[in-house]
Amino acid sequence: MSEPIIDLRSDTVTRPSAAMLQAMLHAPTGDDVYEEDPTVRELEEVSAARFGLEAGLFCPSGTMTNQIAIKAHTEPLSEVICEQTAHVYLWEVGGIAFHSGASMALLPGDRGRVTAAQVEAAIRPANNVHYPTSNLICLENTSNRGGGSCYSMEALASIAEVAKRRGLALHLDGARIFNALVATGQKAEDYGQYFDSISVCLSKGLGTPVGSVLLGSKAFIHKCRRIRKVMGGGMRQAGILAAAGLYALEHNVERLADDHRRAQELGAVLAAQPYVAEVLPIETNLAIFRLRDEMPADAFLAQLEQQGIRASSFGPQMIRFVTHLDVDDTMIERVKTTLQELSVPA
Amino acid sequence: MSEPIIDLRSDTVTRPSAAMLQAMLHAPTGDDVYEEDPTVRELEEVSAARFGLEAGLFCPSGTMTNQIAIKAHTEPLSEVICEQTAHVYLWEVGGIAFHSGASMALLPGDRGRVTAAQVEAAIRPANNVHYPTSNLICLENTSNRGGGSCYSMEALASIAEVAKRRGLALHLDGARIFNALVATGQKAEDYGQYFDSISVCLSKGLGTPVGSVLLGSKAFIHKCRRIRKVMGGGMRQAGILAAAGLYALEHNVERLADDHRRAQELGAVLAAQPYVAEVLPIETNLAIFRLRDEMPADAFLAQLEQQGIRASSFGPQMIRFVTHLDVDDTMIERVKTTLQELSVPA
Amino acid sequence: MSEPIIDLRSDTVTRPSAAMLQAMLHAPTGDDVYEEDPTVRELEEVSAARFGLEAGLFCPSGTMTNQIAIKAHTEPLSEVICEQTAHVYLWEVGGIAFHSGASMALLPGDRGRVTAAQVEAAIRPANNVHYPTSNLICLENTSNRGGGSCYSMEALASIAEVAKRRGLALHLDGARIFNALVATGQKAEDYGQYFDSISVCLSKGLGTPVGSVLLGSKAFIHKCRRIRKVMGGGMRQAGILAAAGLYALEHNVERLADDHRRAQELGAVLAAQPYVAEVLPIETNLAIFRLRDEMPADAFLAQLEQQGIRASSFGPQMIRFVTHLDVDDTMIERVKTTLQELSVPA
Amino acid sequence: MSEPIIDLRSDTVTRPSAAMLQAMLHAPTGDDVYEEDPTVRELEEVSAARFGLEAGLFCPSGTMTNQIAIKAHTEPLSEVICEQTAHVYLWEVGGIAFHSGASMALLPGDRGRVTAAQVEAAIRPANNVHYPTSNLICLENTSNRGGGSCYSMEALASIAEVAKRRGLALHLDGARIFNALVATGQKAEDYGQYFDSISVCLSKGLGTPVGSVLLGSKAFIHKCRRIRKVMGGGMRQAGILAAAGLYALEHNVERLADDHRRAQELGAVLAAQPYVAEVLPIETNLAIFRLRDEMPADAFLAQLEQQGIRASSFGPQMIRFVTHLDVDDTMIERVKTTLQELSVPA
Repeated sequence: MSEPIIDLRSDTVTRPSAAMLQAMLHAPTGDDVYEEDPTVRELEEVSAARFGLEAGLFCPSGTMTNQIAIKAHTEPLSEVICEQTAHVYLWEVGGIAFHSGASMALLPGDRGRVTAAQVEAAIRPANNVHYPTSNLICLENTSNRGGGSCYSMEALASIAEVAKRRGLALHLDGARIFNALVATGQKAEDYGQYFDSISVCLSKGLGTPVGSVLLGSKAFIHKCRRIRKVMGGGMRQAGILAAAGLYALEHNVERLADDHRRAQELGAVLAAQPYVAEVLPIETNLAIFRLRDEMPADAFLAQLEQQGIRASSFGPQMIRFVTHLDVDDTMIERVKTTLQELSVPA
Repeated sequence: MSEPIIDLRSDTVTRPSAAMLQAMLHAPTGDDVYEEDPTVRELEEVSAARFGLEAGLFCPSGTMTNQIAIKAHTEPLSEVICEQTAHVYLWEVGGIAFHSGASMALLPGDRGRVTAAQVEAAIRPANNVHYPTSNLICLENTSNRGGGSCYSMEALASIAEVAKRRGLALHLDGARIFNALVATGQKAEDYGQYFDSISVCLSKGLGTPVGSVLLGSKAFIHKCRRIRKVMGGGMRQAGILAAAGLYALEHNVERLADDHRRAQELGAVLAAQPYVAEVLPIETNLAIFRLRDEMPADAFLAQLEQQGIRASSFGPQMIRFVTHLDVDDTMIERVKTTLQELSVPA
Repeated sequence: MSEPIIDLRSDTVTRPSAAMLQAMLHAPTGDDVYEEDPTVRELEEVSAARFGLEAGLFCPSGTMTNQIAIKAHTEPLSEVICEQTAHVYLWEVGGIAFHSGASMALLPGDRGRVTAAQVEAAIRPANNVHYPTSNLICLENTSNRGGGSCYSMEALASIAEVAKRRGLALHLDGARIFNALVATGQKAEDYGQYFDSISVCLSKGLGTPVGSVLLGSKAFIHKCRRIRKVMGGGMRQAGILAAAGLYALEHNVERLADDHRRAQELGAVLAAQPYVAEVLPIETNLAIFRLRDEMPADAFLAQLEQQGIRASSFGPQMIRFVTHLDVDDTMIERVKTTLQELSVPA
Repeated sequence: MSEPIIDLRSDTVTRPSAAMLQAMLHAPTGDDVYEEDPTVRELEEVSAARFGLEAGLFCPSGTMTNQIAIKAHTEPLSEVICEQTAHVYLWEVGGIAFHSGASMALLPGDRGRVTAAQVEAAIRPANNVHYPTSNLICLENTSNRGGGSCYSMEALASIAEVAKRRGLALHLDGARIFNALVATGQKAEDYGQYFDSISVCLSKGLGTPVGSVLLGSKAFIHKCRRIRKVMGGGMRQAGILAAAGLYALEHNVERLADDHRRAQELGAVLAAQPYVAEVLPIETNLAIFRLRDEMPADAFLAQLEQQGIRASSFGPQMIRFVTHLDVDDTMIERVKTTLQELSVPA
C-alpha cells in the first residue's frame, strides 16, 4: 500500500497535529497531584465555564471520568439508570458494579436515548427493604451504540425535571458531546443547568492524544479528586496533555461539521449498495449499517482492509464507520469508490 | 374480625405446625460453625442427595444462598446473565453488584423464563478489554415475577448445554423448586446433572420458619462455607432450624398440589370478575392478575383487608395471591365469595 | 468415654436447655422480613432499652451484626480504627474490606484494649487526597484475644469523647458484653451514651442456639435493616430464635459470675503446672495460657482429648479455655485433676 | 523572590527537560487501547527486559500500577501482607480494600523493611473458615516512609523463598527502585527471578511528567490490561508519555548518584543543627529528620518557605527532604546555608 491507511474504526485513533504538539511542548507545568499544574487548572476552568458548571477534573480517559462520577453520585446498594446500550454499561468492563457496587436498571431506548417517562418508571419504590436505591441517571450524548444520535434540549430538560423532582443525580457521558452541540446548534453553557456532572472527552473528535475532563460543582469535584487518586488517575506534569485539550477546544470544535458531512456522504453511498440491508440515521460522525447475510461482516472488513480501509464490527452483521480529524475528503472519496466496487462473495 | 386472617401475600408467612415444632424441639444439635451439628449435616446431605448433587450448606435465607452462589461462581469483572425480573436481580437489594462486584445481562423472558438462544446471545465476546466476562447464568424455577411459571426439562437441558459448551456456571434459584417439581412431575434428582448449584428454600411452600439450603459439588460448598461466614450466616445450634427442614421435606412436599389447585380456583373466580383485566396463566401456587383502571389497586387491597384478606401489590394495577400451607379450602371459599362481592369504587 | 465431653473450646457450643426450648416452642411468630414477628420485635425493644439505645435488629450471628454496623457507619474510602487483634479484623474473614471496602488502622493494645490517645493518633488528617477517611472506631468488650479483658467505664468515656470531638462513630463488639458487665458491675444502660451502635451476642455466655442483636438509633437501625437483607439475614418466623434470647436475658446473665469463678479456678491450677509458661490475667470466662516448649500444644490438646476435654489452640503454644453454661463444677474438678496429671512428652 | 524555588517536597515535582520534550514530540504514536502505540510497546518491552520479566503495561501513575497488581494477585477474601507504613497501605487512599476487597496484615518493619520471618508468621492458617486467605506480599524498595532505605538482595531472596514455598505472590512497589539499584549496585535483571510483579515509576527520580510501568509474566499483564481499562487507565496516543520514559531510562538513571550525594550533604548539615533531634540514616535521595519540640514543624517549614525552599511534613515534628533532577548543587548550597541560619522561635 503506498496510499495512507484510512482508519474509520474510531475517532480515538487521531494523532496530534504539529500545531497541537507545539502547544504541548510549550505548556507550563507543575505537579497536578498537588493541584499546581497551571495548564491543567486552566483546562479545568475553561471546560467548566463552557458548560456552565463550577469546576473540572482532568483525567486520563473517559472511562475514568464516567466511573468517578458514578462512584461519587452513588454508594453501594444504589441503582444506576441508563439505556441498555450505554457505554458506561456496555463497554466499561462492568465498572458500575466493580467500582461502585451499584446495581443497574437498563432501559430499552430509541437509538440509545431514553425518555423521561421511561426513567421515572425505572425508579425503585422507596422504603422497601428488598430494593436498591435509585439515585443516578446516566445519559449519553451523542449515543455511540445509537449511531451518534442526539438528544433534543427538550428531552434533556424533561429528564432533568424527573431527576430533580425525584432526588436523583443526572450525569452526562459526553464522549461526543461536541458532535452533538455542532449537529444540533445547542449551546454548551445550557447543559450545566440540567446535569450534575458531565464527562467531556478530548481524545475523540477533538483529536488530543489523551484525556477527558469531568465537570460538576466545586463540592462534587472536590469529592471526585480523591476517587481519581484511588483509581490511579492522579498524574504529575499533566499540563503537557491538558495543553492539547486547550488547543483542541479552540481549534477543533467547529470543524466537526466536516466530519458530519463526510459521514452523511458515506451513508448515502452505503444506502445505495445492494449488500447493505440498512443504514441507521446519521446525525453526527458515526455511520452504522447492517450488511445483508450474503455479505458476511468478516468478508466485508477483509475486503476493505485490502484497500487500506479499517472499520469496526458492531454486532452481528453490523459495521460502524467513524469520521474524524484524520480522515479528509480525498480519503472519503477513496472509501466511496471502494464501497461501490466491493464484490459479494459467491 | 372473629374469623382468622387469610394471608395471601406470600408463602413466607406460614407458621410452623405443632408437629414441626416437636421435631425441632427434639433435634440433636451442635456448633455448626465447627460443622458439628448433626441435624444440619443430615439436612444438607438429604437435600443434596435428593437433587443429585454432592453437598449442601444450610443458610438463614434464600437471599443468602443465592448471593453466596453468585459470589462463588464469579469474581469482580464478571457478568451474570439472568432474566430481567429475576429475584436475584429485582428483589435482592442489588446484591449481585454489592457482594460480587459483578455486572449483569438482563434478558426479557417469557413469564420469567429465558431460552438457550437468548442466553447464548448474551454471552460477551472473549478477549475484548472493554467487556466483563460472562461466567454465570441464573435461572429461577418457578419464576416468581412470571407468576409461578415452570421450565420444561428440555428447556433446562438446552440452557445447560450452552452453559457447558461456553464454560459458564449454571445456578438455579429454587425458591419454589418444589412447586415446579410437583406441578410438572419432574424428578428432583435430574436437576443435579444440569445445575452447578441450586438454592432450595424451606420457608416458602414447605412451611419452615427459617432457612434455605445451597447445593453443589463438595469443592463448591467448601468454598461457599467461607463466604457464608463472612456474610454472617454461620449459625451455632442451627439444628433446631434444620430439623424443621427435614420434617418439611418428608411431610410438606406432595401437599403442594393442594396449593396449586387452590390457586387455580382463585384464578377461575378472578377471570370472571368485571374488574379484572387479565389473569396470568396459573401453573403453581401464584395467581397474578391485573385490575382494570376503574378498580384502583389500593382500593382493591383495602376492601380485601376489611374482610381479613391480605394480598400484595405487584406493580401498577398488578396483584399477587399466593396459596400455601396456612390457607385451607374454607379460607379459599371465603376469598372467592369476597372477590365476587367486591364493589368497584364510583 | 462414659463421662460427658467437657467442651472448653468456646462458649458458642452451649445447647439450649429444656426450659429455653419450651420458651421457643410457645413463642408467637410472624414474618420478620415484613417486621411482623412479635417475639423478634420484643427482643429488639428489650435489648435496646437495656443498653440505653433506641432500636434493635435481630440477626443470625455476631459476625453479621458487626459487619452490618461497620457497613452502615462507613463508605468505601473510609478507614476503621480497631485493635490489631479485634475479632472484627482477625476472625471475620476480612469482612471490613469485603463488605465495606474500608481500610483499617490496627492499633497495638493492652490485652486487646486501646486508649483514647492511641485512637486519636490513628485518625487520618483530613483533606489529603492520599488518605482514606477515618470514620469509625470499633471496640471489643470483653476482648477475646485479650483473654476476656474488660474496659473501665472511664476508658470508654474518654474514647467516646475523642470519637465525638473528631466526628467518628463508635461501635462496640459486645460478643461477651454481659461477661464484662457482670465482672465489672457496670450498668448496661450506661453504654448507650457512649456508643453509636452495639452488637450483643446471645449465643455465647447467654446460651441461646442462634443470634445477636444490633443496637443503635432508630435511623441507624432503619439503614441496617436493608443491609441485613442484602447480606441474607432477613429471616421469616425468627421469633422462635428470639424467644431463646428473651429467655436468656432473664435467666442467664447473673449466672455468668459462676463461669468467671470457674475460669479463675482453672487459672490457679494452670499457673501451678510446670508445663505452663504464663497465664494471662483472668477477668471473665476466658483463660488463655502459654505452654512451655517442652509441652507442644498439639500433644497437650491430644492428652486432654483422651480425657474427654476439648480446648482451642490460640496461636503458637497458646491455649484458650472457655467456661460457659454447659460446664459445671463437677466438670471443672475433672479438668483440674486432668491438668495436674498430664505428662510432659519425653 | 528572584532566585528559583527549591522544591524538596518530592521527586514527583520535576519538569521534563528540553531534550525529553523533543523525544516526546517526535515519538511515533497509535491507539494504545488497541495495543497499537509503538512507543508504548517499546517502553513496555524495554522495561520488562531490564528487570528480567516478560511483559509490561504502561499506566498513568504508580498508584495505578500498584493497585492493578494487587487486584490481579488477589480476590475478595484475600489478605495482603505489607509493612505498616507501606505506600500501598498508607498513601493510596485505602485502595487495597477499595479495589480488591482484600484485608491486610500490617507488619512493623525496620525503616519500612520486613523480614522473611515476619512475613511467614503473618500468613494466615489455611482451611479455617474465619480467616481471609493470605496470597500476596508487597515490598517497597526503596521504602519511602523508611527514609529511602534499601533491601539487600539476600533479604529479598529469603522473602521470595517464603512466598514461593507458601504459595503467595510477591509484588514490588518500585516507586524508587532505580534509587535502590544505583545505591546498592544491584542489577535490575536479578529482580525478575524474585518478584511476580514490579511497579516501576518513571515520574519520580527519572523525571518524566507522567507514568509508571507494571511488569510481570505475559499472562499476568494480559489480565492486568483489563483491570487497567476498568480503572480508566487505558490511554490513546500514550506514546507521547512513553517516549519520556524511554528517554529517562537511557539518560536519567546513573545520575541518581548525584541526588544521593546531595541528600547526604543535607543530612550532614541537619545533624549538626541544634533544632534537629534525629536524622534517619540516608541511603538514597530522601532525608527524613525529626525536629526538637522547640522548633515546631510549622514554623520550620514557614521559615524555609520564606527563603524559597519547600519541604514536606512527614508526621509530628518529622520533615522530609527529597533531592531530584531539578535540584542542583547550587541549590543544595542555598539550602545548607539556610538551615544553618534558621532561628528557633522564642
